[in-house]
Amino acid sequence: MLRFEVLILGNSSATPMFERHPTSQVVNYNEQLFLIDCGEGTQMQLSKYGIKSNRIDHIFISHLHGDHYLGLVGLVSSMHLVGRKADLHIYGPAALQEILELHFKYSETVIRYNIIFHPTNPNQEEILFESRMLTVRSFPLIHRIACTGFRFDEGKRAASLRADKVEALKIPKVYFAALKKGIDYVDPQGNVFAASELTLPAPASRSYAFCSDTVRHPIYLSSIEGADLLYHESTFLHEMLDRAKETFHTTSLEAAEIAKETHVKKLLLGHYSARYRTLQPLLEEAQAIFPNTELSVEGKWFLV
Amino acid sequence: MLRFEVLILGNSSATPMFERHPTSQVVNYNEQLFLIDCGEGTQMQLSKYGIKSNRIDHIFISHLHGDHYLGLVGLVSSMHLVGRKADLHIYGPAALQEILELHFKYSETVIRYNIIFHPTNPNQEEILFESRMLTVRSFPLIHRIACTGFRFDEGKRAASLRADKVEALKIPKVYFAALKKGIDYVDPQGNVFAASELTLPAPASRSYAFCSDTVRHPIYLSSIEGADLLYHESTFLHEMLDRAKETFHTTSLEAAEIAKETHVKKLLLGHYSARYRTLQPLLEEAQAIFPNTELSVEGKWFLV
Repeated sequence: MLRFEVLILGNSSATPMFERHPTSQVVNYNEQLFLIDCGEGTQMQLSKYGIKSNRIDHIFISHLHGDHYLGLVGLVSSMHLVGRKADLHIYGPAALQEILELHFKYSETVIRYNIIFHPTNPNQEEILFESRMLTVRSFPLIHRIACTGFRFDEGKRAASLRADKVEALKIPKVYFAALKKGIDYVDPQGNVFAASELTLPAPASRSYAFCSDTVRHPIYLSSIEGADLLYHESTFLHEMLDRAKETFHTTSLEAAEIAKETHVKKLLLGHYSARYRTLQPLLEEAQAIFPNTELSVEGKWFLV
Repeated sequence: MLRFEVLILGNSSATPMFERHPTSQVVNYNEQLFLIDCGEGTQMQLSKYGIKSNRIDHIFISHLHGDHYLGLVGLVSSMHLVGRKADLHIYGPAALQEILELHFKYSETVIRYNIIFHPTNPNQEEILFESRMLTVRSFPLIHRIACTGFRFDEGKRAASLRADKVEALKIPKVYFAALKKGIDYVDPQGNVFAASELTLPAPASRSYAFCSDTVRHPIYLSSIEGADLLYHESTFLHEMLDRAKETFHTTSLEAAEIAKETHVKKLLLGHYSARYRTLQPLLEEAQAIFPNTELSVEGKWFLV
């Protein structure tokens, strides 16, 4: 099975505390790496967890609060210093390009590889990246400033051959690809062998959705519907609901209710407030509503 | 004796490697804390070494290469989030103000305390800060972009009383301050007691000089002359002299020769290139020229 997993580099909200770092995570789809958000210190976290930054070709930035993007200039500069040649695609709010350019202007840095900037649209869902096997979309979240979530959808997966049957029938290899696509095999004598009999059905396509930062709001529910894994910010315990609303964040209980409403398979909590030294209460609050919840933990890979 | 010491938060050059962080250090003069440079991750390093960021009221930025200032927006924002009220003075290249303002514009952050920005002059020595007991100056360094060093000079220190003698003579306390200033004591009978006899001479004033980043150049030698402690970048071993010149950096051997020429008491090396996993060769190269050399080590305090 193709790898599809998420490494948490940072799970803290605005003020980094208790050795928790600001938001950043790596999505690995079949050994292609994507970065979501890039808080201060992301390049050190990548190095700590053994990820070579130049394996990343696509960086998605949710919004322009410092804890989600202040590591970007340093990361982009270090990629340059270690000799990157490949294009780098950055997807984020339009103003991010102006910020990057101002830094490079005053540091008199001329980046030796191409940075291709793709402004995101905070008002409607859009496709940002599409390959044969993966599509990445942004969708609107509701925060103090323009902010988007991201969803990674695996393409239609191929059926696998039933080796015992194709061997017994001595079907030539040249027909395997067709069989996997559902095309029946016809032998030289004109006998038809149904593809459905010779293959195992394709596994379901998997999907990962990322929501941070946002207040609870119906606008994004359809965008995260049915995800296999949902990372949803849970900055506060529900006893802080007023504070959550005021700061356009979500409580752990709300994250769990959202996970339930949108029929996701698993919920990952994160973006913890600096007021919480221990996170167990956040987990318990969510699990009471949505049992398949885990705390995001820095340095840990989570399967999609 | 009043404390005068330097805590190293980061000693790495541009690409952070081997768990070394980009440049930042705290100067503690008599429990007043100053920050020199603020590379990415400085706020986490402060927290790691138990320094409350809001004890810092003055931040000095040498130049606008990312490894010397990319932690500043995050630090300033976190000071705001933890409720800072006190003014914060930032000294650095004029464009730094524009960079800060652009960040705050797009994150829609209104910092609740005053930031007082003091542009530095890269062309001549200037006084940046002056209190009764401490003066901080900037002075020109020669780097790829405008860059200054900083020098911290302790004011004239007071003589201390010889307790045995003043007690024996029953000199009233009200005359102590005058004695320490060198004013002789005259008793009611008109007998004169020389201040020099009743006091121990004032200890010499101490000074700390910071030079990073710079190529070796005579322009700054007078500014660091006779410092008790000199932090001088030593990005490379001398076998990389060509590379050092090309990138406007210094070798370890050059740092030692500069320390010798300027009659400083002690040399601290730093700003190590990512090519050096172990630093001992840099130390040995310098010590062969200037024995009283130490490697700057993150998390360690060095006495001035």
